[in-house]
Amino acid sequence: MRWWGWGDPQRRPALPAHALEFLRETMGVEGALRSRPPVSLDAVQLPPARLGADARAALETIVGRDAVRGDHAERVAHAAGKGYVDLVRLRAGTPAGAPDAVVLPAGHEQVRAVLELCASSGLAVVPFGGGTSVVGGVEPLRGEHDGVLALDMRRIAQVAELDRESRIVTVGAGVRGPALERLLAAEGLTLGHWPQSFEYVSLGGCVASRSAGQASSGYGSIAKMLLGARLAAPAGDVTLQAMPASAAGPGLRELMVGSEGTLGVIDEVSLRVRAAPAERVYEGVMFESFAAGVQALKAMAQEHAMPEVARLSDAPETRMSLALAGAGGLKGQLGRAYLGARGYGERQTGRCVAIFGFEGDAHEVKARRGRAIALARRNGGLALGGSPGRAWQRSRYEGPYLRDELLTHGVMVETLETATRWSNLQWLHGVVARAIEDALREQGTPGLVMCHVSHLYETGASLYYTFIARQREGSEIEQWRAVKRTASEAILTGGGTLTHHHAIGRDHVPWLEREVGHEGVATIRALKAELDPAGIMNPGKLVQGERSA
Amino acid sequence: MRWWGWGDPQRRPALPAHALEFLRETMGVEGALRSRPPVSLDAVQLPPARLGADARAALETIVGRDAVRGDHAERVAHAAGKGYVDLVRLRAGTPAGAPDAVVLPAGHEQVRAVLELCASSGLAVVPFGGGTSVVGGVEPLRGEHDGVLALDMRRIAQVAELDRESRIVTVGAGVRGPALERLLAAEGLTLGHWPQSFEYVSLGGCVASRSAGQASSGYGSIAKMLLGARLAAPAGDVTLQAMPASAAGPGLRELMVGSEGTLGVIDEVSLRVRAAPAERVYEGVMFESFAAGVQALKAMAQEHAMPEVARLSDAPETRMSLALAGAGGLKGQLGRAYLGARGYGERQTGRCVAIFGFEGDAHEVKARRGRAIALARRNGGLALGGSPGRAWQRSRYEGPYLRDELLTHGVMVETLETATRWSNLQWLHGVVARAIEDALREQGTPGLVMCHVSHLYETGASLYYTFIARQREGSEIEQWRAVKRTASEAILTGGGTLTHHHAIGRDHVPWLEREVGHEGVATIRALKAELDPAGIMNPGKLVQGERSA
Repeated sequence: MRWWGWGDPQRRPALPAHALEFLRETMGVEGALRSRPPVSLDAVQLPPARLGADARAALETIVGRDAVRGDHAERVAHAAGKGYVDLVRLRAGTPAGAPDAVVLPAGHEQVRAVLELCASSGLAVVPFGGGTSVVGGVEPLRGEHDGVLALDMRRIAQVAELDRESRIVTVGAGVRGPALERLLAAEGLTLGHWPQSFEYVSLGGCVASRSAGQASSGYGSIAKMLLGARLAAPAGDVTLQAMPASAAGPGLRELMVGSEGTLGVIDEVSLRVRAAPAERVYEGVMFESFAAGVQALKAMAQEHAMPEVARLSDAPETRMSLALAGAGGLKGQLGRAYLGARGYGERQTGRCVAIFGFEGDAHEVKARRGRAIALARRNGGLALGGSPGRAWQRSRYEGPYLRDELLTHGVMVETLETATRWSNLQWLHGVVARAIEDALREQGTPGLVMCHVSHLYETGASLYYTFIARQREGSEIEQWRAVKRTASEAILTGGGTLTHHHAIGRDHVPWLEREVGHEGVATIRALKAELDPAGIMNPGKLVQGERSA
Repeated sequence: MRWWGWGDPQRRPALPAHALEFLRETMGVEGALRSRPPVSLDAVQLPPARLGADARAALETIVGRDAVRGDHAERVAHAAGKGYVDLVRLRAGTPAGAPDAVVLPAGHEQVRAVLELCASSGLAVVPFGGGTSVVGGVEPLRGEHDGVLALDMRRIAQVAELDRESRIVTVGAGVRGPALERLLAAEGLTLGHWPQSFEYVSLGGCVASRSAGQASSGYGSIAKMLLGARLAAPAGDVTLQAMPASAAGPGLRELMVGSEGTLGVIDEVSLRVRAAPAERVYEGVMFESFAAGVQALKAMAQEHAMPEVARLSDAPETRMSLALAGAGGLKGQLGRAYLGARGYGERQTGRCVAIFGFEGDAHEVKARRGRAIALARRNGGLALGGSPGRAWQRSRYEGPYLRDELLTHGVMVETLETATRWSNLQWLHGVVARAIEDALREQGTPGLVMCHVSHLYETGASLYYTFIARQREGSEIEQWRAVKRTASEAILTGGGTLTHHHAIGRDHVPWLEREVGHEGVATIRALKAELDPAGIMNPGKLVQGERSA
């Protein structure tokens, strides 16, 4: 993973010239976009490591000498997640902080021992899986403590059990998405959890941040997959065996989901898996309007015709997809014919492309797809065939790579998301888009705001926004913060949830009380006080500061 | 509702003579079964009501004079739930206790005010919905407090909102199952939650006890339906808006589910509803063995062919069903031909009847049923047609009525349930059945132990046991306790969950720590300490006693 961005350092997807030109025009930038490459690794400024010799020695005794890292490269690699703010700071060589050391436990007993040591020595602990949080979830904040460690889970990645008959896999929480899918594929199985960060996520991180994969309409979010887990909390372990269901009290499994490292370290998870699909059909459908597309998606969700993947781009995102795809993806002719003179500004009325993906055994997929496509047609959808579907499949993990490219050209690109009821979806779609547009304009950097509907449920769906604007050089963070604030307020005022799958992290902390109320926050704090009485676990995330009086 | 049993006092389903004869033979009872009718209402002995005049006046000020009840009949009606132990005590006229008063709040503000009064005056509060708990969940225990009130929710039953487009209904928690289904039916909708107690349950009670309906394989359990809720806790309200999904922190909705009135009063719930099915196909299938049936159920659950209702009776339950049905249900000829000389002792090898129910629109049901029945056939299943399905539909709520009849004949009948992974299901089935059989024999009352598999998941299913034996007169509770202890130990040792849908109540408290561990119990206690600092909410349920040091 690049320390300043995303992905394999060897791989550098070029942004096609016509796409850059399209962006430049859209943002109203005169002349060429400026090149703003990241600084070199050596130039990154870190605070001095504050870990004392005694603490280091004690940690080395627990995990081994090679597993306590204090070198520049490891500290930089654990200095931030992969949010926009993180990347802006890293590329400038000025991360907000760095862990005093990176510790790599090899198993549960070592995690326990490290937590006990940290609780008694006043060291904060930031559990670190794939490090892909986009909401500041792994920022190395020390809170009130003397030091802060990144607890990198990558060595805890063994398969504890594969129960083929029950379709349950139990793995160390540090196992990465691709490694797990390779292992399952060899058994004819799949987890079916494909977040955009799939290439790097750890499964423990997915559980801790309540993630939803791109195919969650069919496979469900990680919360639906989690059957059992072990949480190593400073106060003790909470171990819940994998069960298909239980009525033994309140949902303790669901307390671990979304706990974001603030209650303890999830170090083992038991997940439901499925038969690897014999058939995967991905295809595109064009709708005359966003409203028509939404009606089709809702009908699929409510009438037993749910695709595994369903994404409806609004008119601006549709136009951008075509611009980025060029002659690929949608055939250029078709794209032009369909979008014609309509501009991206016609958010509610412009034509919109949807991608649907169906996975399963051939017979069942055929029947379900038949019902879904019929519902699309009933809402005026025009089938575009498999080409847009395949194009989406090829590019499904490209977002973070493109973001790096845009940042290198001085372009801000950020995403945020929400979910709401079907009855509120179209209204919220417009409210939040306009709020972001207005906020960008107020910053003197008018931009492009795009959105897609995805992650369908019978009762509603998520809205996923991407916005692009020229960076305000020298005040990139302030620019971002103003837009983020406006968007979050618009979401909550408009009846959406603060986040559908990015979690709270540090970025959403100011608004959590708006979502769950004063007593809801107090409840989370009470959980934390019980499980992490010294408050060492991931300070400053999820809830702020001390327990209220 | 009968105070000493179940159902409308006007309705008394007779147990056919041949069924009683079958039972007598099975239990090895010589001569006729004894008649043991319940005492009269007047003869029920209650402790004197201890509510002081000041407290009563304060309560009357909040809820109105007519809504504070202290009469004998109301106190008896709220003296217990509907578990075996409850009924044994009630019928003998010696309930374990009674509330000092029954309070009927008319809305959220009244609930809040009552809780605040009780917290400051040291009165325990037992939230009372339908009163159908079979695990002692509404037993009027006062804990360390001076008095105990039953908080009857029946007046909080208004429909706050029906969002037709999103298919979400928001109702007062006291609304009963049939009332909600009638209301939804008028809109072409259904909740699809049909526990055996359907005729009397309140929806708040379903949420609080994490119930699962008979059609949960298709519609999901109540936890899957709950999108939003309001918990009136002594410390304050926790209000969670109805959302299709959210990643805003740990699952607070899931904390309310299964909280069993110990954290506060759930007084409003938002639930997912579905289109009322145009088609309902219920039918029977005969399998050559329990193992074959289990394989078929597992395949349906894992291969996109899940019925809404799936119940596989083991050989003893199959035999009993035929005996009870007589000439109805399965045709007598067919039943005899199939079961022939095989005894109910052949638990694993005897032939087994399954009931499958498919609900939805005609086209989709046809396709899904086709796949399911093909999987049944592939496992040797023989289709028995619609007659057994219709018979099951007719008798789906009969269990508690029959229990009353059996108690009147001096026969103990009790149910208990668990869930486990598919890979453990057949083994656990035998282990628990033998444990119950042995325990009954040790009590000198050998009995009949029957079981069915139901509530299917991709990863496992529940096992639901019914056992019948002669009552040990004069020591009915000790007899029951011995069997319950043995069964619970067998379940936990055998890898099952303590309860799939009956909840913890009072009966399962001793084993909760075995299920969720020391720190799991400590976590629930911490939640309670935050939300109910005075410990007034439903004392003695879910977790025992005070918070550990």
